[in-house]
Amino acid sequence: MNRLLVDDILRNALTEDLGGGDVTTELLPEAGRPATGTLLAKAPGVLCGAGIAARCFTLLDESVEISLKLEDGAELRDGVEIGRLRGRAASLLAAERTALNFVQHLSGIATLSRRLAQRAAEHGIRIVETRKTTPGLRVLEKYAVRVGGGYNHRYDLSSAVLLKDNHFALSKLKPGELVRRVRAQASHALRVIAEATDPQLVEELAANGADVILLDNFAPDEVRWAVRQVAGRALVEVSGGVNEANLDAYVVPGVDVISIGALTHSVRALDISLEIEPR
Amino acid sequence: MNRLLVDDILRNALTEDLGGGDVTTELLPEAGRPATGTLLAKAPGVLCGAGIAARCFTLLDESVEISLKLEDGAELRDGVEIGRLRGRAASLLAAERTALNFVQHLSGIATLSRRLAQRAAEHGIRIVETRKTTPGLRVLEKYAVRVGGGYNHRYDLSSAVLLKDNHFALSKLKPGELVRRVRAQASHALRVIAEATDPQLVEELAANGADVILLDNFAPDEVRWAVRQVAGRALVEVSGGVNEANLDAYVVPGVDVISIGALTHSVRALDISLEIEPR
Amino acid sequence: MNRLLVDDILRNALTEDLGGGDVTTELLPEAGRPATGTLLAKAPGVLCGAGIAARCFTLLDESVEISLKLEDGAELRDGVEIGRLRGRAASLLAAERTALNFVQHLSGIATLSRRLAQRAAEHGIRIVETRKTTPGLRVLEKYAVRVGGGYNHRYDLSSAVLLKDNHFALSKLKPGELVRRVRAQASHALRVIAEATDPQLVEELAANGADVILLDNFAPDEVRWAVRQVAGRALVEVSGGVNEANLDAYVVPGVDVISIGALTHSVRALDISLEIEPR
Amino acid sequence: MNRLLVDDILRNALTEDLGGGDVTTELLPEAGRPATGTLLAKAPGVLCGAGIAARCFTLLDESVEISLKLEDGAELRDGVEIGRLRGRAASLLAAERTALNFVQHLSGIATLSRRLAQRAAEHGIRIVETRKTTPGLRVLEKYAVRVGGGYNHRYDLSSAVLLKDNHFALSKLKPGELVRRVRAQASHALRVIAEATDPQLVEELAANGADVILLDNFAPDEVRWAVRQVAGRALVEVSGGVNEANLDAYVVPGVDVISIGALTHSVRALDISLEIEPR
Amino acid sequence: MNRLLVDDILRNALTEDLGGGDVTTELLPEAGRPATGTLLAKAPGVLCGAGIAARCFTLLDESVEISLKLEDGAELRDGVEIGRLRGRAASLLAAERTALNFVQHLSGIATLSRRLAQRAAEHGIRIVETRKTTPGLRVLEKYAVRVGGGYNHRYDLSSAVLLKDNHFALSKLKPGELVRRVRAQASHALRVIAEATDPQLVEELAANGADVILLDNFAPDEVRWAVRQVAGRALVEVSGGVNEANLDAYVVPGVDVISIGALTHSVRALDISLEIEPR
Amino acid sequence: MNRLLVDDILRNALTEDLGGGDVTTELLPEAGRPATGTLLAKAPGVLCGAGIAARCFTLLDESVEISLKLEDGAELRDGVEIGRLRGRAASLLAAERTALNFVQHLSGIATLSRRLAQRAAEHGIRIVETRKTTPGLRVLEKYAVRVGGGYNHRYDLSSAVLLKDNHFALSKLKPGELVRRVRAQASHALRVIAEATDPQLVEELAANGADVILLDNFAPDEVRWAVRQVAGRALVEVSGGVNEANLDAYVVPGVDVISIGALTHSVRALDISLEIEPR
Repeated sequence: MNRLLVDDILRNALTEDLGGGDVTTELLPEAGRPATGTLLAKAPGVLCGAGIAARCFTLLDESVEISLKLEDGAELRDGVEIGRLRGRAASLLAAERTALNFVQHLSGIATLSRRLAQRAAEHGIRIVETRKTTPGLRVLEKYAVRVGGGYNHRYDLSSAVLLKDNHFALSKLKPGELVRRVRAQASHALRVIAEATDPQLVEELAANGADVILLDNFAPDEVRWAVRQVAGRALVEVSGGVNEANLDAYVVPGVDVISIGALTHSVRALDISLEIEPR
Repeated sequence: MNRLLVDDILRNALTEDLGGGDVTTELLPEAGRPATGTLLAKAPGVLCGAGIAARCFTLLDESVEISLKLEDGAELRDGVEIGRLRGRAASLLAAERTALNFVQHLSGIATLSRRLAQRAAEHGIRIVETRKTTPGLRVLEKYAVRVGGGYNHRYDLSSAVLLKDNHFALSKLKPGELVRRVRAQASHALRVIAEATDPQLVEELAANGADVILLDNFAPDEVRWAVRQVAGRALVEVSGGVNEANLDAYVVPGVDVISIGALTHSVRALDISLEIEPR
Repeated sequence: MNRLLVDDILRNALTEDLGGGDVTTELLPEAGRPATGTLLAKAPGVLCGAGIAARCFTLLDESVEISLKLEDGAELRDGVEIGRLRGRAASLLAAERTALNFVQHLSGIATLSRRLAQRAAEHGIRIVETRKTTPGLRVLEKYAVRVGGGYNHRYDLSSAVLLKDNHFALSKLKPGELVRRVRAQASHALRVIAEATDPQLVEELAANGADVILLDNFAPDEVRWAVRQVAGRALVEVSGGVNEANLDAYVVPGVDVISIGALTHSVRALDISLEIEPR
Repeated sequence: MNRLLVDDILRNALTEDLGGGDVTTELLPEAGRPATGTLLAKAPGVLCGAGIAARCFTLLDESVEISLKLEDGAELRDGVEIGRLRGRAASLLAAERTALNFVQHLSGIATLSRRLAQRAAEHGIRIVETRKTTPGLRVLEKYAVRVGGGYNHRYDLSSAVLLKDNHFALSKLKPGELVRRVRAQASHALRVIAEATDPQLVEELAANGADVILLDNFAPDEVRWAVRQVAGRALVEVSGGVNEANLDAYVVPGVDVISIGALTHSVRALDISLEIEPR
Repeated sequence: MNRLLVDDILRNALTEDLGGGDVTTELLPEAGRPATGTLLAKAPGVLCGAGIAARCFTLLDESVEISLKLEDGAELRDGVEIGRLRGRAASLLAAERTALNFVQHLSGIATLSRRLAQRAAEHGIRIVETRKTTPGLRVLEKYAVRVGGGYNHRYDLSSAVLLKDNHFALSKLKPGELVRRVRAQASHALRVIAEATDPQLVEELAANGADVILLDNFAPDEVRWAVRQVAGRALVEVSGGVNEANLDAYVVPGVDVISIGALTHSVRALDISLEIEPR
Repeated sequence: MNRLLVDDILRNALTEDLGGGDVTTELLPEAGRPATGTLLAKAPGVLCGAGIAARCFTLLDESVEISLKLEDGAELRDGVEIGRLRGRAASLLAAERTALNFVQHLSGIATLSRRLAQRAAEHGIRIVETRKTTPGLRVLEKYAVRVGGGYNHRYDLSSAVLLKDNHFALSKLKPGELVRRVRAQASHALRVIAEATDPQLVEELAANGADVILLDNFAPDEVRWAVRQVAGRALVEVSGGVNEANLDAYVVPGVDVISIGALTHSVRALDISLEIEPR
């Protein structure tokens, strides 16, 4: 990850929560005393963002000492200690909520990512997220998907070409012609992905040089048919409406990638807490 | 809402998704032609963020024309048209995903907020979110809670005093003494909220001037007892582990506020799409 | 205080004064040699911003060593040494003016704050600033008021509800009705303050749930009457036209708070200098 | 002035005051209705920042209409109307305090600047500010000095060379040698100013090529002597301890410039208000 | 291009040149009068950045009217009029230098890009830039390459995988193994490019799944041999030491791409001027 | 140089190149291992930016250790080692290109600057750059000119008054009158430079108080004539069309300064590389 970008995200979040300052802690007579914070899992899942959480504290107060027992990717269960922080009570209290908000959110993504990725991996299929990420947190959410065992789709609009239904609808060219033209014009450093909203389009896209064919909202049977039709000329990505409940139906041999928006657009935070005591 | 802050959030999100630019659309021969985008609900819920989504387009290209049919707070069902955009195809395509990410996320919050708020409102109780908001999106998420019929808790660490378990654990003073001291020192413009992690603390907090007593992880029976004990000396807020499944048990007469972290920390995006066609 | 916010303010000020760089010092043959700077008070007053001034130097050059003899809140008189800095001459010279601008301004506020706060404190009344702060420096100016012994009013437009003359003028509701409605709708975590521009309004505001009644431009006799009228139903704040000359007239028993705009809008800098010598 | 820089300052100030949003106005049923705001002088002085104040409103809401009756530099007296704003009540209320904070502060500077500049101008002497400006507001404060009839000193550390006592103390060269060396090395586009902390230095500085000789803390007699000694070889600037009370003593023929730190470091805000009514 | 990113670059450049403001123009009695500026080519080349230059003026003063006669990509010769600006003299003067700096730099790139691209295009080969762009201007420089008829290499470190000599040197795996492993792990949306610093590596890279093989500092004969060896299994990119003088030697049939760092790291500005007259 | 400004430029450049992160290095099994990078000159020239390049690494990863063998200003030849970096392989790889882009660009400027400055210095004439700098890099490019032995022109539009052809064309005053007026009104801390586009203007500008007369596009004979005409009343600057080929013709006794736009607008990068090996 780009550390400078991550630090900007953390600083922004810290200052969002601090506003003019932590008025409660400033009134606490013991605010300046040393304290210890213990980061504890309160539910089973996959840890993600332990270093991010720790960084929240050190960005606010570089004298806070961090010792993490677990690394991102570790399996958590209720009561497991993730790590400890030592520093001024005021610093631990001021960054607590922001740090927890990050680690809970990212662990939520990693937890779901691992559940789905494991089921798909048995069949040599990758689970990837989509661009339906939380605004402002993309770099972190993509990291959480990887921590969970998933893979990443394109980072942003500039890092791969992806012709979708809206592009085809706007173009006067036939889909195959558009794919051919775009592939011929696109940077040699970029892949060209083409979305098939209908099985009838698959052959046209595959024959015209798409590197990846994205099957959008295909039924499982249609996916099976499309895999045979593409016959290795392009990678096959399944997308649209796949979720935890119906994933198994889409784990079709020959599929390379299944992209799942819910990995990042409908995150369920993992319960993690910080217990602070005087040292 | 602070419009300048909101614009910063939207610009940041747009540029996160655009990177160097939309390489797909730049290769589309029709990129410069006029197009129409229709914002459509794909699932039932409460609309929130229609204006936010529209602003994404105009921040990128001020010549995009917006006409919204529905306002935030409207009930949606699958197929309902929310509004239309007219402008250069390239502009609609470039802002599409970011705009949808906002409106889907915020509508998800508003939808849950309304479901919960309505159940509580019948008993004169407010539903509020907590500080467990998505980093960087707090101002928008709090707005979404209000759109759904909920109310807001304190905005940040500087806008109310809230003594929690960690503060009491750090202090050498007894909880009641700490509340009394903090209330005496705190700004006259701020409320002082005190968290009771145990029923035994309720009387001590109420007797020492807390404006709000937050009952943390109390069983419903304990809540009922606490309401009687406080007897109007402070507002009563119930918090910790309340969710959609167990809300009814906490809708206890005399409770003023129920705060629910899941309103913002475990959001389920509402499905909304944009269909773009040549005009 | 929010340290990240404070650092942003300091960096912005340093770069405002540095522009492309310190062209004088860059021409000094001895720019790179070690030097000592002594921070000296040149007039009596209350020190505020010693740490802020020190931070200016370390933000520019983290190798500058600071040793402060006095802490914020200390009484100063002409010639008193506040602290010493050791580091590259160029670093001391580059940050000197900015550091002094902060400490002189903040000490000016703390000095007046203490003078006023002490006179009011004898009667159990607080002195607070208003929102008439210097644009961009609010967080620091409010800190300076506290250092001087004053208290703070609301931090910003989001941290308390305050109905002023302009709100009442715009509303079709009667003042009391507006207060009642706003109190009923406002966040339970926020106080509601209502401004009485006329003694006739006091009863109406007190009867409808205002947490604080702000008596705007009341004569001392009117203040005395209002205190009796409110009779403990709300806190009483006196505001408008109170200054060092007439403060005693407003120190009326039963008043809780006196807010004084001049604390921050008409600051008189305290004279503090930095003497730099080769080490 | 650099308009982009000014807009950044205003946006920063607006968001400092707005925080998450104006919670009072959001609760006002009439927040969306059209209103008129009248900017009124409440005390005699010189107007400065009318356009800056107006810009605060349009940055927040570009539909606010401004009509200014007076321009910066106009003489104000109690009750004079400066201009009117028309727009949504919520927009007028949200930007009111920030706009007033700017115009009151800048008018305070312009008012003092005019008083001093007029007295000096009769003798062909300029009044200028110093670098003792309020952190973050330099560009505006220098503008206010000009509006009042004063002139500006160097903008920042990069826009003129100024050898002060601290530079001389650090250097192994004699003052005259340092001036000569620095003049020889400095950019041909920059002036070199040298501070004389002692009358004995004046000849040495003048003989070695300083463009301006700054007489620091000289008694009036010493100033007169120095003017004769410099004899036109350099401009003569008087600085240090000059204020409204003793200015006349320093208005010595042959002096070119008197620099006064109090112009910007000890500003007395001019009372200006905004009255908002439903339109 | 990402317009928000471009606007940030332009604003930053304008404020870099303006500092506190344009002190010359502020002293010009005619600063506020209407004026016309004519953008004129002073040398032959390819226009790039006309819209960027125009945007500099409107960012500073939105009332400046622009009428461009030529679009980016147009052939220029000495004396050709590119377009006209009408607006306040002060606005034209303030943005002049920054606007010219952009259009001269970008036209310099486009001019060289066209010269090289045309020679290569006859043989079906693309000319692309490298990541040796001017810090802070990448998005604009890549645009200028396209305007000249060149194509783009990867945008940044996140938009393609590129294994270079330094990666191979660090890895314990053999080059072919590293390529295979990385291709297997990389996002399906990204291409994998592998650099061959030696002809002996070509087969190993081609056999292990590289999408593009980058021949670094190969002699023309080695390039010819490598093309035959790769035999269509990957795209072939020639890089390292290719310049205008020796380009023809590298225009080898079967090469797909030639990347040239000098396109952006050694730019020769194209002479373009702005003549301003009173209207 | 203003270090805070420089750090902002470096951070911006690093994040421009990193985007979401270095996808190649993240896939390298050895990414976390310690490595050594050696900065090597590949061509003769003048080193500039070694510290800047080093700072790129430490901004990204403060644990990278730097040891520079050469300082800015050192003469380079092919194969010379400039310095070494030790740190995590991933950190060296991530900052490599950005660091090199800076040092190559700045060394290119310093190299040309030294070549030209040495030829002029023999005759007591300075070489200076113009405001034709690369947008966003001015502070660094001016530093590179100084490293090469050149001097700097004004930093920006606020740091000297410069009346150019466009100002004279707009003004109703005669050039001499405009110079006189502007000199009378300009800050005493600023120099006034006046551009003569025609020999006939020289006397008029010199007689009216210009501190510097800039001879724009004068033939060498005209320059000689102008020097005699000015006769020491002002500094003489030659500008316009001077380049490496014709410099000698303009090295006219009595000229003080020659300004050369190509120093910064047409930079030829100096070849410098980084070789990374496992430690």
